[in-house]
Amino acid sequence: MEKPGHYLTAMRAAAPLVQNITNYVSMNVMANVMLAAGASPAMAHAREEAAEFAEIAQALTINIGTPDSDCGDAMAAAAQATGRLGKPWVFDPVAAGATRFRVTLADKLLPLKPTIIRGNASEIMALAGQSGAGRGADAGDPVAAAQDAARALATQYGSVVAVTGPVDFVTDGTQSYGIANGEAIMPKVTALGCALTGVVAAFAVDQPPLAATVAALAYYGTAGEIAAEVCQGPGSFQMHFLDALYNLTPEQLDSTAKITAI
Amino acid sequence: MEKPGHYLTAMRAAAPLVQNITNYVSMNVMANVMLAAGASPAMAHAREEAAEFAEIAQALTINIGTPDSDCGDAMAAAAQATGRLGKPWVFDPVAAGATRFRVTLADKLLPLKPTIIRGNASEIMALAGQSGAGRGADAGDPVAAAQDAARALATQYGSVVAVTGPVDFVTDGTQSYGIANGEAIMPKVTALGCALTGVVAAFAVDQPPLAATVAALAYYGTAGEIAAEVCQGPGSFQMHFLDALYNLTPEQLDSTAKITAI
Amino acid sequence: MEKPGHYLTAMRAAAPLVQNITNYVSMNVMANVMLAAGASPAMAHAREEAAEFAEIAQALTINIGTPDSDCGDAMAAAAQATGRLGKPWVFDPVAAGATRFRVTLADKLLPLKPTIIRGNASEIMALAGQSGAGRGADAGDPVAAAQDAARALATQYGSVVAVTGPVDFVTDGTQSYGIANGEAIMPKVTALGCALTGVVAAFAVDQPPLAATVAALAYYGTAGEIAAEVCQGPGSFQMHFLDALYNLTPEQLDSTAKITAI
Repeated sequence: MEKPGHYLTAMRAAAPLVQNITNYVSMNVMANVMLAAGASPAMAHAREEAAEFAEIAQALTINIGTPDSDCGDAMAAAAQATGRLGKPWVFDPVAAGATRFRVTLADKLLPLKPTIIRGNASEIMALAGQSGAGRGADAGDPVAAAQDAARALATQYGSVVAVTGPVDFVTDGTQSYGIANGEAIMPKVTALGCALTGVVAAFAVDQPPLAATVAALAYYGTAGEIAAEVCQGPGSFQMHFLDALYNLTPEQLDSTAKITAI
Repeated sequence: MEKPGHYLTAMRAAAPLVQNITNYVSMNVMANVMLAAGASPAMAHAREEAAEFAEIAQALTINIGTPDSDCGDAMAAAAQATGRLGKPWVFDPVAAGATRFRVTLADKLLPLKPTIIRGNASEIMALAGQSGAGRGADAGDPVAAAQDAARALATQYGSVVAVTGPVDFVTDGTQSYGIANGEAIMPKVTALGCALTGVVAAFAVDQPPLAATVAALAYYGTAGEIAAEVCQGPGSFQMHFLDALYNLTPEQLDSTAKITAI
Repeated sequence: MEKPGHYLTAMRAAAPLVQNITNYVSMNVMANVMLAAGASPAMAHAREEAAEFAEIAQALTINIGTPDSDCGDAMAAAAQATGRLGKPWVFDPVAAGATRFRVTLADKLLPLKPTIIRGNASEIMALAGQSGAGRGADAGDPVAAAQDAARALATQYGSVVAVTGPVDFVTDGTQSYGIANGEAIMPKVTALGCALTGVVAAFAVDQPPLAATVAALAYYGTAGEIAAEVCQGPGSFQMHFLDALYNLTPEQLDSTAKITAI
């Protein structure tokens, strides 16, 4: 695995077009975060065009944060099209275990073998059939509690699984890494987890999924640390965070990343 | 009624999970405002899960700002489930009188007896069957013009009714209060009224609805005053407002609240 | 044609109510941009009320950024109602050529003769049946490449056509103008193009479409220049941009506008 700055440089050079089927709360933030990072986001979720869009996009993200009856089909169609074309797709199982509707949706998408799955501890545990202490989109469980669930999911679906929290955990079922970047204020801004999923997808275009995910998390967490140092609350944090994503250099990232093989 | 800081302290200690069925314009702002205040927002509006979500949430808000044909049923189902469980729900009748579609929707929801109704003067007058001078989501009528309508609605549906504007008016049909906090620039940022509805719901969890509403409005208006003092326009206002919601202490609130029994 | 400050003054005095049927990514930004500029935005897109809303609004915008099956009918109904009432409507053909679904939607709306069409070079070329190098919502083509397409569309549909980019191009098929205001960082904030469409519509209420469009673009670009001078990235740009839209005076605009007859 190269240093994270290597993957950031490549992502920015590619400026990949990433199709996002996401929830209404996060659409705008996700687009702004991805633009600031250097990617090119496209929010295309209609049943009529989701699969067709997969042909022009270089990666796909699917987020079940505010699902409705229609979008399950669009999600599955887009995931299948993307997978068939050999492009990466990232699954974000927001509040996966909260309602039967979401459980059913997740059960429909997982067999399509996401390249990467990114969620908080409670969501990853719910996907693996474990009942945790999650509540809505909040993680009620520590990252450590979800490590076995993450490894099991990774092995079952051939995915890289990222459990994000104070110290992130990333695994492909065999190799695992911890990433200790990030700040406590980040969950006080809505949809930053969803937006991270888009950044992970952008890093994963033409780059190995495990290394790309680790690098994306270190990059995101570092931008959070820079913003937290100068902010005065969640309003100014959000502004400084976008600026930091935009201005952070690969060299800076290499010197701040806290990545450990586990 | 205690001082408003009392209810703010209790709300933050509870960090209540509030389900919001709201419009697409306000979803993100509402979530950020509620997070900054100390609550835990969940945006769950699908027909398939709205009612089920009501079981895990501690309060519900319903906003008809960008309705579509499906969401009326989800709204009614969630309101019924929440009411049956004895949890508070808050109705936000955005642009209630603007189109026949919204009038029909409001007529369907009011008989489900919202715990609290929060709107501007024109919206409250429209709910009470009075034709005012409202235009879209803008209030065309002064708060004072809606006091009788507010009292009538409160009596008819057993609700607390809040008319927000330069000086807010809150009534349960018997007791009434005026809250003189807030700033003229607030309507220049979209969805701050919608977001307030979420804060009111968070305050109303396990607290008496009338006092909780009054405290929430004083808290919100005070944060607006703090932000207005340092902002240079609506862009920086929004940032400072979120920071102020996050940083405002109960003691500070008690000293700045302008609450009068009417 | 008067100086642009003339049209800004009139727009602010009228504070026109503009109905917007737009995509979910841009709704919030568009509303905030329009409020900061001095207009009164209303986001009403339901099939059930889109046409009825056209009666109370003074202008309409239609944006196909995140279309779904339902909204095509709502768009057409609203456009027809607005046109019949002699009010202006502005068409924003986001990513027009990206999928068959969008091509079909655009083909349905163009014959309803938009007062103004605003898009980037690739979108305008796609509308005119030319295949450019666009990718999602990004322009892959320079503004100059779309001038003939813009003139052809303007003539065919009796519309004013605005191609926005580093130097904007506006034409009614006969007269054409270039507007050289704006900043390179603007495409790094999502939905600023969509939001501009709303500002154009506000300017076009009771003002000649060609002059109103030219003035709106100069106003928007100047606000971008002011914000770019003090920002430190796309996060702070967005904040300063809203403040600049709010604070920019007609006199200031007249002195900064870079408008050339072509």
